[in-house]
Amino acid sequence: MHIKKQRLLTPGPTPLYPKALYAMLGSDLHHRTDDFRGVYKSVLADLKELMGTANDVLVLVASGTGAMEASVTNCFSPGDKVIVCSAGKFGERWGEITKAYGLNVVLLEKPYGQTVSAAEVEKALAANPDVKGVFVQASETSTGASHDVRAMGEAIKKTQAIFVVDAITGLGTQPLDIDGWGLDIVIGGSQKAFMVPPGIAFLSISAKAWALAETAKLPKFYFNLKKEKKNAASGESSWTPATSLMLGMAEALKYIKTLGMDKLIDNAQQLARATRAACAALGLELFSPDSPSGSVTAVKAPAGLDSGVIVKDFKSRFGSIIANGQGSMKGQIFRIAHLGYFDFPDLFAMVAELELILKANGVPVKLGSGVAAVEQAYVEIAIAQKETVNA
Amino acid sequence: MHIKKQRLLTPGPTPLYPKALYAMLGSDLHHRTDDFRGVYKSVLADLKELMGTANDVLVLVASGTGAMEASVTNCFSPGDKVIVCSAGKFGERWGEITKAYGLNVVLLEKPYGQTVSAAEVEKALAANPDVKGVFVQASETSTGASHDVRAMGEAIKKTQAIFVVDAITGLGTQPLDIDGWGLDIVIGGSQKAFMVPPGIAFLSISAKAWALAETAKLPKFYFNLKKEKKNAASGESSWTPATSLMLGMAEALKYIKTLGMDKLIDNAQQLARATRAACAALGLELFSPDSPSGSVTAVKAPAGLDSGVIVKDFKSRFGSIIANGQGSMKGQIFRIAHLGYFDFPDLFAMVAELELILKANGVPVKLGSGVAAVEQAYVEIAIAQKETVNA
Repeated sequence: MHIKKQRLLTPGPTPLYPKALYAMLGSDLHHRTDDFRGVYKSVLADLKELMGTANDVLVLVASGTGAMEASVTNCFSPGDKVIVCSAGKFGERWGEITKAYGLNVVLLEKPYGQTVSAAEVEKALAANPDVKGVFVQASETSTGASHDVRAMGEAIKKTQAIFVVDAITGLGTQPLDIDGWGLDIVIGGSQKAFMVPPGIAFLSISAKAWALAETAKLPKFYFNLKKEKKNAASGESSWTPATSLMLGMAEALKYIKTLGMDKLIDNAQQLARATRAACAALGLELFSPDSPSGSVTAVKAPAGLDSGVIVKDFKSRFGSIIANGQGSMKGQIFRIAHLGYFDFPDLFAMVAELELILKANGVPVKLGSGVAAVEQAYVEIAIAQKETVNA
Repeated sequence: MHIKKQRLLTPGPTPLYPKALYAMLGSDLHHRTDDFRGVYKSVLADLKELMGTANDVLVLVASGTGAMEASVTNCFSPGDKVIVCSAGKFGERWGEITKAYGLNVVLLEKPYGQTVSAAEVEKALAANPDVKGVFVQASETSTGASHDVRAMGEAIKKTQAIFVVDAITGLGTQPLDIDGWGLDIVIGGSQKAFMVPPGIAFLSISAKAWALAETAKLPKFYFNLKKEKKNAASGESSWTPATSLMLGMAEALKYIKTLGMDKLIDNAQQLARATRAACAALGLELFSPDSPSGSVTAVKAPAGLDSGVIVKDFKSRFGSIIANGQGSMKGQIFRIAHLGYFDFPDLFAMVAELELILKANGVPVKLGSGVAAVEQAYVEIAIAQKETVNA
């Protein structure tokens, strides 16, 4: 037990697709050349294809939060009324951004682990017909809960409001019919299901959102979506792009296209289901059992055990990096990620590590029982897939 | 002549320091871990040391333009009066940003290739005692001209105004005594003299600038310098950092520390002087002869020859990527870069390429005469350095 391989098993940054990482070594190129314009255009086109939308897709040099801000400053004016759905740390961020820019916020807030329902959004829209936008997380990474953006979209599309979806961990982990469900702005980031290091964010923008942007009066400069759209048409970015990360994205997107976006989503959801089965076998309680996401499973630490101890033991015993709870959930929960470049062997190993850590900390678990649940899930999927192939 | 190596010879992105590039392969790490906090803190500390300032230094996930915007939104309020010095494409950008945020701009504008003088800034300050900030480029990359920020700083420090210096190509190419000269905000970018791909920007902030920030009312969220300062103290970033580029920066900064910041600057200025000597030998006219920068030398294309042809020939004949003019200067000038990881053999080869391209396009040049001028510059430096060593 002398070698401890570092394993990045968090819901972002996620495990890197090796060929994408190696592609970043080709960064000695200039962004105002046909070579790079080709890369830039291919990333935009592949993102659009994988997101499955006819809407414009643009890329920004920023963390996901930058793209969240861009959706606010490009579409709204001071005092505009908006609905913010908040059920975790990233929902709170929507509240902070919209308030920082002087929007008039109708807050639909739920405790961590729960979700805001489509019915609640519909009711708030009916009570506030002057609402111009609704903000939500597809997957709330801090709690492992997933919002029903399909039903929300159905309600919102009948109104004047645009629907802004932070899908930073939602993309590639749950189906998102952007055009069919009326998701006007959908935000993603490189370091999530897209298997590349952090540093670029992207977003799709519908005609309804562009129309609102025409009247938006909030000041902006660096995040100017209209300017980006104009430049993107010729393979250019408004400002110097993150060339290394774009090279990585180009390679990762090629891989995801080969796999198929539906398979990437299915892969995450299979791992999520297997993780829930392992938790049940180990007597562990899920933090958001009612609306589990495909991106990350939040698990309550057993009574009397700080989740930080579990996270620390993963690192010190095995070199594995898993996520603690965030904000007020720190110490209460730990999170097992499924999004992006994760597979069943990752989960076999991780659950075995978890069993050993729980046992070492005095939690009565039967070694192998969690792993057996994951293996059983694997067998069932293999049988189902074979049946599909033979049918 | 079948092999054509790609050589990135532009004033940003610049040639990459190989070990910095390879360090980016270690990107499978999480940003909320002690491992990464160590990297983050070392980058901040090394930047501070190399910039030679006691001011705070912060890093942002953005192109340089993002840090320019941050200096505006974090220090000013709508309607604040500011002086913008504009003598090229990036000076124009200061004008665009300050106007986008509703500042009251006193514009000191000069034609491309010239500079705004310290006396003009002093006069404008005297005529506008309510000015709260002065914006300038240390090195105007679009023209190869350098502003006298030392003299400007002396004038500005006597007033209430803060001095905001875009030193994106100025850092590492010209001496900048940030604390001594009163440069309240100094902005840099990873892809310039710092030898790393684009995607992160950084800036130093003085006590005078922080004091102004206390009363600043412009809206902001993603670029919140006070929040970044608070987080940086514990090795954290407000939002997910660009881990891969931070790993690259850590390695490049280590190299620059070994070299010495003064040597990096001297290296760029030696190459700039040698380039000017080569141009003289080849009968080429400089675009900004009165205040040449150490970052880039802008050269007028010979009469009747579009500079785009020269740029294209560098690529097609030799695989070398050099910079055309920007904006209205496109086709008029080409630019030879000196900042960062450049050395004399780069310049020997580049000037030889230039001689062949000029000759092929009918410009009467004597092959070898430009290179000889660079070699002569090299010899003089070698003699001077030996004398210094022996003295």
